[in-house]
Amino acid sequence: MEIKTVGIMSPGDMGHSVGQVLKTHGFNISTCLDGRSERTKRLALTAGFNISSTLEDLVKEVDIILSILVPSESKNFAAKMVDPIRRVGKNIYFADCNAISPSTATALSKMINDAGGKFIDGGIIGGPPTKGDKTRFYVSGKYAPIMSELDEKGIKIKFAGDEIGQASGIKMCYAALTKGTSTLQVALLTVAQKLGLSDCLRDELAYSQQTNLSLMESGIPRLPPNAHRWIGEMEEIAKTFKEVGITPNFHLGAVEIYKLLNSTSFSEESPENMDMARTARQTIEAVADLIPEKNQEI
Amino acid sequence: MEIKTVGIMSPGDMGHSVGQVLKTHGFNISTCLDGRSERTKRLALTAGFNISSTLEDLVKEVDIILSILVPSESKNFAAKMVDPIRRVGKNIYFADCNAISPSTATALSKMINDAGGKFIDGGIIGGPPTKGDKTRFYVSGKYAPIMSELDEKGIKIKFAGDEIGQASGIKMCYAALTKGTSTLQVALLTVAQKLGLSDCLRDELAYSQQTNLSLMESGIPRLPPNAHRWIGEMEEIAKTFKEVGITPNFHLGAVEIYKLLNSTSFSEESPENMDMARTARQTIEAVADLIPEKNQEI
Repeated sequence: MEIKTVGIMSPGDMGHSVGQVLKTHGFNISTCLDGRSERTKRLALTAGFNISSTLEDLVKEVDIILSILVPSESKNFAAKMVDPIRRVGKNIYFADCNAISPSTATALSKMINDAGGKFIDGGIIGGPPTKGDKTRFYVSGKYAPIMSELDEKGIKIKFAGDEIGQASGIKMCYAALTKGTSTLQVALLTVAQKLGLSDCLRDELAYSQQTNLSLMESGIPRLPPNAHRWIGEMEEIAKTFKEVGITPNFHLGAVEIYKLLNSTSFSEESPENMDMARTARQTIEAVADLIPEKNQEI
Repeated sequence: MEIKTVGIMSPGDMGHSVGQVLKTHGFNISTCLDGRSERTKRLALTAGFNISSTLEDLVKEVDIILSILVPSESKNFAAKMVDPIRRVGKNIYFADCNAISPSTATALSKMINDAGGKFIDGGIIGGPPTKGDKTRFYVSGKYAPIMSELDEKGIKIKFAGDEIGQASGIKMCYAALTKGTSTLQVALLTVAQKLGLSDCLRDELAYSQQTNLSLMESGIPRLPPNAHRWIGEMEEIAKTFKEVGITPNFHLGAVEIYKLLNSTSFSEESPENMDMARTARQTIEAVADLIPEKNQEI
């Protein structure tokens, strides 16, 4: 066993949960909390994670770093790790587990490997493991096999291939479906709301699209508290599509819808205090209220 | 009963089927076949529809015209009806049943009403009635109530409201969901194919998105033969969204995907000779083959 201590950056909702299950399975968990929220700090201390004072200390203390962040922070964090890894002179494993495009992963790989680290491409599918989900960590690249030491330790490790970018590619395509579909649904229900056709459309959907309607009713109220995290993810998906030669438009649209959802008052809720009684209709009404009145008379 | 003879323009897949069930329920069906395909002519003659020589004759012979066309033809057809309606001087009902934006419907309404006709806004949801579907005709506008004479005569009439544009709005929002979702699915599966991740993604979808995967497997092979009809529909949906103030990007993306599907050899099939054994994977491979190789190495 090469891995005894795992560095989790940052221990937010997903990272904290992953740290907890790995700790339960005998790993030491370290993190560095500089600049993190009070809530994140409290959660890390309560869970008994080691707190490293600096990123350099973190590199010294751990065998592998799992970068679990919002996509927009993943590049900044990898860049911040370059000097500490180089200064400590340790061939540390660095698994970027964020929702980024294959080309972004390739850029981070070069950065970390050039500093002397061993970059692993990763992508997480499923919810936090402490919430009962069987969280899948897709991994790829030549250093990915080390991740098998974490397999079935509260998370599942899935190998996507030998190349950097493959694990990210799986995450991009998967989230393109799930989060792309959610935003498409929000968009069209908002259009119906603006046109005064919500009831009529819902009756039709109840008749001919019951499965879709049920998914919308249960899924849409949960979007606003997560919307801020998914704006950057949709941007990375759009980039992935464009680089392959497929239209990025779906997920450029998704970016705009998550920005709207993130502008509703519901976006201020955290996962712990989310209003579980809120309906899809109330969520859509809040989005529709953000759209200026123009040309919508029919 | 005011309606005895119904003009169907054009008796293509949907129009022909609607004509057949209305004829079964005692209505006379007339059409005008100028410029229509040999297949459409053969179908109309076989079904025993009256064939009017000119659009002016059609106006003389029928009580209501149902315009059932691809969206891109709906405006041209309404424009072509202006002179015949004016010349005959008959307050004929004209129901545009096409997948067009509320603003397009409003423009057609002005055109037809100014010529002396009585414009009804309509939108069809569901497949052709002769194929066992309960086809819903959403209708709106002050002349819409006449359509109740066709209710339960092989089709269902649903009132969307008193305003022109409401029936079209329902159709736009509904198709935004169904056909928008289909193209989003094609897009992401094509990206996975280009990245060499099809098998890996399908395994994940089989594990965590079984319902979505089943819908993709059954739905995607049926898209190419219909793609040419849906390009214009996606454009009208994008227009609808934009006019309300919601991002048109999802359906601008859908336009591009239907254009790709329409460029595969499978698009040459007609509904009668579609290869029912074709899989979603084969369809996606055909789409992926159309994308030039560029930057897709990861």
